[in-house]
Amino acid sequence: MLSVQTRSSRAAPWRKLAAPPSARPHARSVGIVQRRYAHFDAPLELRSGATLQPFTLAYETYGQLNAARDNAILICHALSGDAHVAGYHTGDPAEKPGWWDEAVGPGKLFDTERYFVICSNVIGGCQGSTGPASIAPDGRPYGLRFPMVTIADMVAAQRHLLDRLGIERLFAVAGGSMGGMQALQWAVDWPERVENVLFLASTPRSTPQQIAFNETGRQAIYADPNWRDGNYYGGPAPTQGLAVARMLAHITYMSDVSMERKFGRRLQGWDTLPYTFARPEFAVESYLEHQGRKFIERFDANSYLYITKAIDYFDIGADYGSLEAAVARTQAAFLVVSFSSDWLYPAEQGLALVHALEAVGRAVEHCHVEAPFGHDSFLVEVERMTEVVGGYLRRRAGARMRV
Amino acid sequence: MLSVQTRSSRAAPWRKLAAPPSARPHARSVGIVQRRYAHFDAPLELRSGATLQPFTLAYETYGQLNAARDNAILICHALSGDAHVAGYHTGDPAEKPGWWDEAVGPGKLFDTERYFVICSNVIGGCQGSTGPASIAPDGRPYGLRFPMVTIADMVAAQRHLLDRLGIERLFAVAGGSMGGMQALQWAVDWPERVENVLFLASTPRSTPQQIAFNETGRQAIYADPNWRDGNYYGGPAPTQGLAVARMLAHITYMSDVSMERKFGRRLQGWDTLPYTFARPEFAVESYLEHQGRKFIERFDANSYLYITKAIDYFDIGADYGSLEAAVARTQAAFLVVSFSSDWLYPAEQGLALVHALEAVGRAVEHCHVEAPFGHDSFLVEVERMTEVVGGYLRRRAGARMRV
Repeated sequence: MLSVQTRSSRAAPWRKLAAPPSARPHARSVGIVQRRYAHFDAPLELRSGATLQPFTLAYETYGQLNAARDNAILICHALSGDAHVAGYHTGDPAEKPGWWDEAVGPGKLFDTERYFVICSNVIGGCQGSTGPASIAPDGRPYGLRFPMVTIADMVAAQRHLLDRLGIERLFAVAGGSMGGMQALQWAVDWPERVENVLFLASTPRSTPQQIAFNETGRQAIYADPNWRDGNYYGGPAPTQGLAVARMLAHITYMSDVSMERKFGRRLQGWDTLPYTFARPEFAVESYLEHQGRKFIERFDANSYLYITKAIDYFDIGADYGSLEAAVARTQAAFLVVSFSSDWLYPAEQGLALVHALEAVGRAVEHCHVEAPFGHDSFLVEVERMTEVVGGYLRRRAGARMRV
Repeated sequence: MLSVQTRSSRAAPWRKLAAPPSARPHARSVGIVQRRYAHFDAPLELRSGATLQPFTLAYETYGQLNAARDNAILICHALSGDAHVAGYHTGDPAEKPGWWDEAVGPGKLFDTERYFVICSNVIGGCQGSTGPASIAPDGRPYGLRFPMVTIADMVAAQRHLLDRLGIERLFAVAGGSMGGMQALQWAVDWPERVENVLFLASTPRSTPQQIAFNETGRQAIYADPNWRDGNYYGGPAPTQGLAVARMLAHITYMSDVSMERKFGRRLQGWDTLPYTFARPEFAVESYLEHQGRKFIERFDANSYLYITKAIDYFDIGADYGSLEAAVARTQAAFLVVSFSSDWLYPAEQGLALVHALEAVGRAVEHCHVEAPFGHDSFLVEVERMTEVVGGYLRRRAGARMRV
């Protein structure tokens, strides 16, 4: 058991960050990167009992694997993320780097001068890994014939990728939201392969409210006549249903405070209320519709269905009788980060994990960040995440060198 | 100005109710009731500048107007409510009384042995008052040709009804959620006609988050191909879009705690997870879909669009430069009730009204109720509402008799 450094959250459950964020003058972009593909012919046995065979994982890496092969960090993406965490693909506009570019690069939170950072698109996804839009062995797109996947299945697929890359043990596995679920699952399923878990704005157990939001988004997709029970490939996609699902989800990623600050009751393109259904009246409406339109350009509706189901199924304690029993399997040290305005994955859910880890004697730090940006805080609050998470990683790396 | 009894919420902002609810052994049903209609040929001038003419209000009354005509209470309904507050229509099943039956009747919160209780369906509604499904003067349904309405317009229409009923002054106007908006608007627009305002689980100003939820529901309706820009009367209705809107709204009416208690992660009709899209897996999904199905049987999608717009437009301070300036017009005494778990209309929004009323010297009591049921608490917590709101009414009536 690793207990190099334990700062019990029970002693200081709400470690608040009052200090202003520090600048990061030396942070640089990772530059041009390439998406790679790992193809696997071996069957992936899924929790549902089904099998996926063959399967492909799209992935990217940043930085260099050191000679000891012990500086690898796996980043797990959230619902709408993908393998493209940082840098640019050839031809990308300057304002369109990877989804967590601010956190991954030389001198950044995940410092690519120290760490070898890996991220792969989850199975069931639509950005290069095998998912419902992929061609099945019979030559047609899977559609709903794609097997249901779970967080554990996503992790099982990533484990094959790590074997392929020759990485026996991860210095850390990190993720926010659904990424945090994968990070926790990693430590439970492959305890000897995970040294640290960074669990950000996440939960060990999806709640009925979270399931309800996901199900409502799915119902919006089902209701789109273009969905055709998932058999829409080659024809018009259920983009309107997917846009509604995204609008709904986007509200849950923000907070009432951040929406008030960003939009208030400002009108969008009107001096006075036009009293119309024809166009957005309020700025917040225009913003949400823009988010919906952007999303349908890059995301597959069936993948949205599969990935939200995987999130809903997640209850890692249920697989082992209790959360304590599940985390008793882990050997990693944990950093759990929650955000004051995150009402989708409230702090209490992160704390439940903290208390379970403490109950079985694992090393765990808990940091509760006062931030107004809701669930999105884990992405938006880069300076503070750099301080908290980057600081944790440096301390953990330092502790390892002294052992 | 009426200031018979002022208990400043500034002195005791969170009056918590720790005592268990008392039984109401003498409460009875109002029995069989009838929906009535008031037709108006005069034009209703709307805030948008448009005119509605003619118009009809469906309404119900309970109890008797006394000789002094000073015991009338107007109840204003919320988004999905209607004029049928209490009792049964002939043929109704025993388990299907009006929407606030537990609060209206002999010996109940709104004691019909003392008060003459009135409720009318809002204009723009679909339960007998003129709305988008009504036949326009040209013989065809209005559809989106129906003029946009505001909370002030709903109140203006109700004022015509009170004139028709010969009621010069209301002992109280009461409402939860959108009903509270109407109650406040009454006191601002017709100060001399309102003695008390009961403002429950509501806000003086719709926030961008509230607008965002409503807009997402509207987008679900717009996306339904049966909607046809509102011209669906006589053909299939956009029921799937409306059901999605209702599911979304229903989540916002509950709380994470109440959903956890009611559903947890219980499966619905399965012993183990079936891993399927074909039917609901979790009880919470089944419940929401049931709510969606029930709603489309009784509600018109266009009315849903119009009424949510009226809610979004509501910002009573903006009409007068500030909330203080708006409430400086009122002569009523106020009871403002908020609920601890109401995250859709959080307590801070009711408190904003309380502070504005205090700033201009109005009589206001504020009661913050610890209740787990979210926004729905104002309907669900009947015993405590009887204690708080019924008690307030008795005190106010008693004070009036002593003047």
